[in-house]
Amino acid sequence: MKSDIQISKEATLWPIDQIAEAAGLSESEWEPYGRHKAKVWLDESHEKNADMGKLILVTSINPTPAGEGKSTVTVGLADALAQNHRTMIALREPSLGPVMGLKGGATGGGYSQVIPMDEINLHFTGDFHALTSAHNTLAALIDNHLYQGNNLQLDPRRILWKRALDVNDRALRNVTIGLGGPTSGVPREDGFDITVASELMAILTLSKTIEELQERINKIVIGYTYAKVPVTVQELGVGGAITALLKDALKPNLVQTIAHTPTLIHGGPFANIAQGTNSILATRTALKLADYVVTEAGFGADLGAEKFLDIKVPLLEKHPDTIVVVATIRALKMHGGVAKTDLTTPNVAALEIGLSNLGQHIKSMQRYGVPVVVAINQFTADTAEEMEIVQKYVAQFGVQAYVADVWVQGGDGALTLADAVVKATQAASAYTPLYTPDMSAKEKLQAIVQTIYGGADVELSGKAQRQLIEFAKYGWDKLPIVVAKTQYSLSDDAKKLGAPKDFAIHVREFVPKLGAGFLVALTGSILTMPGLPADPAANHITVDNMGEIDGIF
Amino acid sequence: MKSDIQISKEATLWPIDQIAEAAGLSESEWEPYGRHKAKVWLDESHEKNADMGKLILVTSINPTPAGEGKSTVTVGLADALAQNHRTMIALREPSLGPVMGLKGGATGGGYSQVIPMDEINLHFTGDFHALTSAHNTLAALIDNHLYQGNNLQLDPRRILWKRALDVNDRALRNVTIGLGGPTSGVPREDGFDITVASELMAILTLSKTIEELQERINKIVIGYTYAKVPVTVQELGVGGAITALLKDALKPNLVQTIAHTPTLIHGGPFANIAQGTNSILATRTALKLADYVVTEAGFGADLGAEKFLDIKVPLLEKHPDTIVVVATIRALKMHGGVAKTDLTTPNVAALEIGLSNLGQHIKSMQRYGVPVVVAINQFTADTAEEMEIVQKYVAQFGVQAYVADVWVQGGDGALTLADAVVKATQAASAYTPLYTPDMSAKEKLQAIVQTIYGGADVELSGKAQRQLIEFAKYGWDKLPIVVAKTQYSLSDDAKKLGAPKDFAIHVREFVPKLGAGFLVALTGSILTMPGLPADPAANHITVDNMGEIDGIF
Repeated sequence: MKSDIQISKEATLWPIDQIAEAAGLSESEWEPYGRHKAKVWLDESHEKNADMGKLILVTSINPTPAGEGKSTVTVGLADALAQNHRTMIALREPSLGPVMGLKGGATGGGYSQVIPMDEINLHFTGDFHALTSAHNTLAALIDNHLYQGNNLQLDPRRILWKRALDVNDRALRNVTIGLGGPTSGVPREDGFDITVASELMAILTLSKTIEELQERINKIVIGYTYAKVPVTVQELGVGGAITALLKDALKPNLVQTIAHTPTLIHGGPFANIAQGTNSILATRTALKLADYVVTEAGFGADLGAEKFLDIKVPLLEKHPDTIVVVATIRALKMHGGVAKTDLTTPNVAALEIGLSNLGQHIKSMQRYGVPVVVAINQFTADTAEEMEIVQKYVAQFGVQAYVADVWVQGGDGALTLADAVVKATQAASAYTPLYTPDMSAKEKLQAIVQTIYGGADVELSGKAQRQLIEFAKYGWDKLPIVVAKTQYSLSDDAKKLGAPKDFAIHVREFVPKLGAGFLVALTGSILTMPGLPADPAANHITVDNMGEIDGIF
Repeated sequence: MKSDIQISKEATLWPIDQIAEAAGLSESEWEPYGRHKAKVWLDESHEKNADMGKLILVTSINPTPAGEGKSTVTVGLADALAQNHRTMIALREPSLGPVMGLKGGATGGGYSQVIPMDEINLHFTGDFHALTSAHNTLAALIDNHLYQGNNLQLDPRRILWKRALDVNDRALRNVTIGLGGPTSGVPREDGFDITVASELMAILTLSKTIEELQERINKIVIGYTYAKVPVTVQELGVGGAITALLKDALKPNLVQTIAHTPTLIHGGPFANIAQGTNSILATRTALKLADYVVTEAGFGADLGAEKFLDIKVPLLEKHPDTIVVVATIRALKMHGGVAKTDLTTPNVAALEIGLSNLGQHIKSMQRYGVPVVVAINQFTADTAEEMEIVQKYVAQFGVQAYVADVWVQGGDGALTLADAVVKATQAASAYTPLYTPDMSAKEKLQAIVQTIYGGADVELSGKAQRQLIEFAKYGWDKLPIVVAKTQYSLSDDAKKLGAPKDFAIHVREFVPKLGAGFLVALTGSILTMPGLPADPAANHITVDNMGEIDGIF
């Protein structure tokens, strides 16, 4: 079997000007980055006058080591739609840290890939690097302020703005800085997050204009004074410089699938530690250009789709017309307790148990009032009997499941799914958000835990409770909530597969993100800086003298 | 008076395909990055068959706060040459850290600028970001190795590979990492250098092919085992991944001057802490494309030009045909003891004292057997009498000085200088390197100190002496030397202006850079991570809703 990168290399890339033209962009609306990538910025008249297309949100069951192929289905479904409709894809950008660690990016697989996959997975057009640079420039300016007399009276023990790098580097989670005597800064504790967890990433993906970008940056709370008063970037006076560093990163990036479907890839917050959806601008641009836009949200529906529907939709001012929930027979069997090594053996009993995970996600998505379709991403070991069981199971929710054989066949493997999705988008849908702004943080969390996770309640640590009292003083207590939680379980315990019941979610701490406009609730033992495994992917990446890369997957 | 960025914005940019064509590149030899930047990679036949043009190296006296305008003269001289000859420029890329701090980049000024200056000074084509990313990926892989069982028996107290960021951030000079308990790495002392000081930057600027890049990366010594045996990247097994991250950064970047002279900007090592010259590939590519190539080396001739002539020339296999030493009357007066506030007052006495600095640099450059021309970068307060004194002074070295009024007039202000330079390049030159490979490190340092700096001797600290004994065991003791030294003085004491005599240079420590192929000698109190000033430039940078940036200088 060919590897994804081999298939990517063998694909024929169209010059990016051809893709831009096919997408309906005029020449003033895009800039090339190499011969096969571009940055896009719609002219005002184009942005204003075009109607919005239909929006299809692809999400999935809780991920397992068996693989669900959500990005692969996203790409395959769009390639199928593109055979008969003006279609675009809107995805997140892959983070470099994990590419060097355990897995490749989010560019799909097999014959349902966005290409050139190696360039997209490595530096792409530099957006993440611009974010890393802007993030650490702000950090340097904060420490310089401490060093140069500290006019703002910032308490070095209460700086919220950490540093960031796009690497998996556990050794940087907790550091002390400013050592080496009086000429080398003010000693204090600090830490690094992975760039996708930076508030600047959240802000970039939520801003529609440079002006809004700067307004949000100015609102970032960098820390507290000795008198415990919050201090913002505005007060530090460097919002212009930080915005200037991000002005090009704000433009969505255009690439293509193997079938040449125009694809916007932009912004990459992880759904387990941030809001997990691609940028408002990319989705909006695609909706202005195409009749059908396929987008995805990170990890399972409990993480990515919930945030898409409760955080992104109100800002996008457009809700999905259909939600596609992706599962594989293999992964459902893992949710039913089968080990990864036994997945090729048919196991009806385990499948029936594991389907509870799919069921919870179907129910939670239906709660939003949007039509739901299930896509089963096909693997060779799947049997007709197993597929029948899935179909029978989902029928109880009034939902249908379709097989998508997209890894092998590309868009041709998703034509039936595409027809079903088109039909679903034509149904009248009545989007209802999960919570209203006036609800308290605890009430919002309860709605998420009970309705989306199928859990019992939320438990706040003493610190989290004290924080909410403090936040109320500043009017931050009514902000939307981004739950940072393990992606592997509906609960905050990665080991509880299937559809656990009667569990509580434990919030150990809130992180206020005033620029992004939400509170992050850290649950369980979730970390905002991953580590590398014992045998990292970096050990196997090669490049030849022609610049051809191998070993990325 | 207009600011540099205003002049840059008002200039008419030609589309980059026009510049590429004017430079003689076929379409397969370049890739666009936006509409006004490109990456260049000569076809093999082109690279092999074209003759090399004449090489002109621009250097200067020791910099002062009065400004010398070396980049401005470089651009103006090239624009003057371009009026009658196929001419290209080869410059270093500006570092983002200092752009946010005290000064702008190295794109020239006034009407002698490379444009678009804001893009070049900020992210440009992402080369520095790729270096930062590769550097920190390697660091993460090293700490992961320590964490995952440490098969190589690396001594955490003897890791040489620090981390790097392209910021001015003194608080990161000395840090402790790996804190937070057993799941967050192995605690140890570490530090961050600015990206331009990374050995990867040195390697990138010295490599001609991807293969050579990888070979050099594999040779990097990352630290020592508990038994004090050096450990390389090769042994860690991640040379392929790090090379893959740098394969595009290896390609020189093409832009234009305000007068549309094709300009390659590539690599950015600082001359005070690294080798201070742009990439071998960019200089070589320019020499293959043009009849006259103007390049510069960082800071004064003691730092940049010395390294150009002793480190770069042997690898480039081409020596300069003429060296232009830039000075201003203002800066010479500062070297004569005048305060910055009094520079507009004619002061013949101070000028005569300050000329000693220019004299030392002329002598040291003549030592290499290459014709020398002096360029006086004109300021409005300069008087005819002062200019006459300069001309009389340099005549004693058999050299002529020419006025260059390039800030105001662009290339038209350097036509006489250009004629003199063309004439000088036609003289037979006999390049002789300062030292031979078989000389000891101390002998090489003595040659640099006595011949180039005009000093008496070199003093090695106890540590430096012990290091040389150790290095001899590994065969590193005969490598070329990169002196890291203050740029403000010929000595290692920033306060000694003019041409100090009888001083010693104090080497406190050597840093072995086996991938780059040299030893860095840290002298005086030189730092490899700068800090920000009390009122950093970042406080004044703005961007409007159209993406127009102001406040970069």
